[in-house]
Amino acid sequence: MPHNITIRPAIPEDAGIILTFIRDLAAYEKLSDQVQATEEDVLCSLFGEKPDAECLLAEDDEGVQGFAIYFHNFSTFLSRSGIYLEDLYVRPEARGQGIGKSLLEKLAAIAIERGCTRLEWAVLNWNQSAIGFYESLGTKILDDWRLCRIEGEKLSRLAEGN
Amino acid sequence: MPHNITIRPAIPEDAGIILTFIRDLAAYEKLSDQVQATEEDVLCSLFGEKPDAECLLAEDDEGVQGFAIYFHNFSTFLSRSGIYLEDLYVRPEARGQGIGKSLLEKLAAIAIERGCTRLEWAVLNWNQSAIGFYESLGTKILDDWRLCRIEGEKLSRLAEGN
Repeated sequence: MPHNITIRPAIPEDAGIILTFIRDLAAYEKLSDQVQATEEDVLCSLFGEKPDAECLLAEDDEGVQGFAIYFHNFSTFLSRSGIYLEDLYVRPEARGQGIGKSLLEKLAAIAIERGCTRLEWAVLNWNQSAIGFYESLGTKILDDWRLCRIEGEKLSRLAEGN
Repeated sequence: MPHNITIRPAIPEDAGIILTFIRDLAAYEKLSDQVQATEEDVLCSLFGEKPDAECLLAEDDEGVQGFAIYFHNFSTFLSRSGIYLEDLYVRPEARGQGIGKSLLEKLAAIAIERGCTRLEWAVLNWNQSAIGFYESLGTKILDDWRLCRIEGEKLSRLAEGN
């Protein structure tokens, strides 16, 4: 781990910077139109009575530089829960110092600690620098799986059997 | 919904048939070597004190014909939880009667009921009949995302910072 970087769980006071990072990440992924989260949503999702996800922050002397948002998923074949990394982000000015790797290492350690044998996430297929980085850590890219999504109006219609 | 089909939540007494379906599904996906689940694992994962996932069963006069195993995931951009369908299976002899669609409809209804706006899952890219079926229901295939996985020894090495 870079010597001046600390990885720590986020606290409610971090909701503002977390939302900033969510927006920055969406802009990088060219998905800004999909961001609907507000600071109150972040507070509720991560720090509410029954949180939907957890968040790790990477911090150095200059402040918070990146985050990892994750939750538990489940493998039927293993009959065991794993950790799913929903988002990983490091501020552009802080890249190349091993902060992303430090966040992944901490997440791997949390997975092991909780008895999980898998850490999974998704990457955009045009993001070759991310793919190369993940592969260098021992990650397998599951080339033959595709994500499916049904949402909004179409989900409502399916629910009604139309 | 086919007139003699009931969709109901699984109960602990269903663990045996659930495990049979998990094994059948893995054989169909040519992934039998990945199945490590035992009946006790199924009981613990689905019906333990803190379940990792939930299970719906489709039943007709002849017995249980299919299942859907799912859990809650989370979208950072929406700051909202969704439902992730880990496995959907219908016995080969019972296909073509709308049982898979009934399971998906029920799952969509559960999503709406719980305030989720998305239902997501993964499909093998060679399974064109499944892809066509999902698309006919309004599903979008996210062609530009790839799943990443790090597990076992490699996960342990990452956790140790090697």
